[in-house]
Amino acid sequence: MRKYTSEIGEEDVGKEVTLYGWIHEVRDHGGLVFVILRDREGFIQITLPKKKVDREIFNRAKKVRRESVVMVKGIVKAEPKAPGGYEVIPTAFDVLNEADAPLPLDVAEKVPAELDTRLDHRYLDLRKPKIQAIFRIRHCMLQSVRRFLCEEGFIEVNTPKIVSTATEGGTELFPISYFEKEAFLNQSPQLYKQVLMGAGLEKVFEIGPIFRAEEHNTVRHLNEAISIDIEASFMDHEGVMDVLERLVARIYEDVSVECEKFLSWLDIKLDVPEVPFERLKYDEAIEIAHEGGEDIPWGEDLSTAALKIIAEHMDSHYFIVDWPTESKPFYAMPYDDKPEVCKSFDLMHGWLELASGAQRIHLYDLLVKRIEECGMSPESFGFYLEAFRYGMPPHAGWGLGAERLLMSMLGLKNIREAIMFPRDRHRLVP
Amino acid sequence: MRKYTSEIGEEDVGKEVTLYGWIHEVRDHGGLVFVILRDREGFIQITLPKKKVDREIFNRAKKVRRESVVMVKGIVKAEPKAPGGYEVIPTAFDVLNEADAPLPLDVAEKVPAELDTRLDHRYLDLRKPKIQAIFRIRHCMLQSVRRFLCEEGFIEVNTPKIVSTATEGGTELFPISYFEKEAFLNQSPQLYKQVLMGAGLEKVFEIGPIFRAEEHNTVRHLNEAISIDIEASFMDHEGVMDVLERLVARIYEDVSVECEKFLSWLDIKLDVPEVPFERLKYDEAIEIAHEGGEDIPWGEDLSTAALKIIAEHMDSHYFIVDWPTESKPFYAMPYDDKPEVCKSFDLMHGWLELASGAQRIHLYDLLVKRIEECGMSPESFGFYLEAFRYGMPPHAGWGLGAERLLMSMLGLKNIREAIMFPRDRHRLVP
Repeated sequence: MRKYTSEIGEEDVGKEVTLYGWIHEVRDHGGLVFVILRDREGFIQITLPKKKVDREIFNRAKKVRRESVVMVKGIVKAEPKAPGGYEVIPTAFDVLNEADAPLPLDVAEKVPAELDTRLDHRYLDLRKPKIQAIFRIRHCMLQSVRRFLCEEGFIEVNTPKIVSTATEGGTELFPISYFEKEAFLNQSPQLYKQVLMGAGLEKVFEIGPIFRAEEHNTVRHLNEAISIDIEASFMDHEGVMDVLERLVARIYEDVSVECEKFLSWLDIKLDVPEVPFERLKYDEAIEIAHEGGEDIPWGEDLSTAALKIIAEHMDSHYFIVDWPTESKPFYAMPYDDKPEVCKSFDLMHGWLELASGAQRIHLYDLLVKRIEECGMSPESFGFYLEAFRYGMPPHAGWGLGAERLLMSMLGLKNIREAIMFPRDRHRLVP
Repeated sequence: MRKYTSEIGEEDVGKEVTLYGWIHEVRDHGGLVFVILRDREGFIQITLPKKKVDREIFNRAKKVRRESVVMVKGIVKAEPKAPGGYEVIPTAFDVLNEADAPLPLDVAEKVPAELDTRLDHRYLDLRKPKIQAIFRIRHCMLQSVRRFLCEEGFIEVNTPKIVSTATEGGTELFPISYFEKEAFLNQSPQLYKQVLMGAGLEKVFEIGPIFRAEEHNTVRHLNEAISIDIEASFMDHEGVMDVLERLVARIYEDVSVECEKFLSWLDIKLDVPEVPFERLKYDEAIEIAHEGGEDIPWGEDLSTAALKIIAEHMDSHYFIVDWPTESKPFYAMPYDDKPEVCKSFDLMHGWLELASGAQRIHLYDLLVKRIEECGMSPESFGFYLEAFRYGMPPHAGWGLGAERLLMSMLGLKNIREAIMFPRDRHRLVP
């Protein structure tokens, strides 16, 4: 029975265990060889005293190249000086796949590499415990999100990624040839999840890829990303903000508890943010920016410079609410008594936008009017608009960027660190 | 506090409840009006005796059009003749969004519609309890899959859908314009999940969209589908078949227990398949087909006609194993002592293929040889092949079609019933 390195304990002392993994290091002291075996859970020392192990095994271990894949059987011994406190004296040592040398990237991280080089050889980069820890935490984050949303009564759905209609007008779309037709990669499940409110599913979520043909290359944009989306009927913007802040707090809690080891590999201690998060009105936000020397004309989006000033006044997580209607997509619900402002919000972490949402317009006539005011044609929203004519409930929702959430939680400097195989303006491989 | 219709019980009798939903039916008996309110969990009768309810409420309920969205407050009464055993006498009845008439599709299912019409107005089709039940079960199936795979130590990953390399040669790919470059929609995460074995993640899974530009329109093919994929290091084909059959049995168990209500809406009783599933060798399979009058030359794939003959001899679920190497993709591992046969398998339900998998080739030289034998160029597999040179463990995996699994579990006649918004040769909207 195979054991992970992290599973070796007091109860194994004196017993034979089977280990699989990669050769992290070989230290050859002549008559004594130490091999550090690495698997996805950690490291263990394989100790080979020349006089005590089989000659063939000794020679094989002495010569094995770094990052080769091996199967080791051996007897466990307590050894305070070994990493983890145990060592294994091998009775079998099989090289399952020998690695070529030299390696294109140093897994032992003695030589720091540029991000581009690391991404070119991502399979080696991911073997570094600090990098692998990011994706173990990502796994935990995704399970935490689904567990929470299921508990809250949300139904998981999958909406199509090949679509005929742009979500928010025709910009930033990747075109596809779909047989004889022109089609696009969906930039957001927005229209579909709203249609599903018309379908009576009441509360849905989707975790799936979104595609944006944004030309600019920044440390916080990807051209293909994973979006966590919800939509909920009979809820307003306040209702879905409440879901969102409790979700974020829950993720931090779950990751703190379930990923203690991986957080320690990354040297991170998470502070679970307290709910409710502060609600900062857009009008207050531009006032703070103004006082900090950055003027935003009312109605415009907040610049990065403005957001950096605002972030200094706020806790780690906060909402910016009540945005000008003109600054948000056509489907955001304007306030009845003040239609130039809409029931929308952004969830911020410092100056990084994590999520964006709103109560949506559920009234057909108002929606058509808003589409026209935004300079678009209602005809191009055929199937979407139809769903508003035959019993569309009031509803609200948001989209949360999985990579941005992970990036902000772990303090990663570049969003490319939060996704295994990033797609950007220039990177399509691997 | 809002209650779902299904939550109304003995403890609510005499109390006021708040309900949200759609007007399923209005029966007007002059001085007595019955409104059937539908939400995603079921139905409840709203009873309006003219003399006992507010006149405005009475008139509003009498006139409300079917499929309008309403909020109803009222007092619960036990009423054995009402569906579910309870009725509500309203104290408030607000029409939140009035539906237009006539409806493009009958939600009460009195008039059966063609599939194409149903899909054109999918938001209305999905309001039918029998249709919604399919997607509630789909939700349960997806949670069951992830729970099981997490328990088995698999890590959830997301691999890119925009790729530069075809998985299995250049056929059946949708081309994309990716800035200046030519790119494709990925037809399978195969190459990426294998690279992740090289990355030392050991066991990964992904549930995500796959895209196939297959020209033919059948009841069991989609051009965009959800694939459940795993890849596991230090496992062979037998190991991952064991995971797969236990997963399928677990899904049936979980759906049986958690979706009792939705199965009853569909009039389905699930039989949990017994593990292990039978393993039928390819050679035996073509012998059975031959005896049934369908000759398959050794080395060729099994025709639908052959599979239908074979299915008659087998239980609901079975594996066809040990396929000719030439009939499977280049990455399937040939047997050492019989390289014309490979360590691959298909999981079948009757004559429908649900999943396909294999032990993979982990040896660089053999892999290059197989790519060349399949008439492809190793140069076009650059990043994939590199991962095999520096410590690729032995590994195996499979891909399981989510829609096929759901279709076969629920006995759906057309795979388009198993996905909310199908994409096929002709359908790109909604």
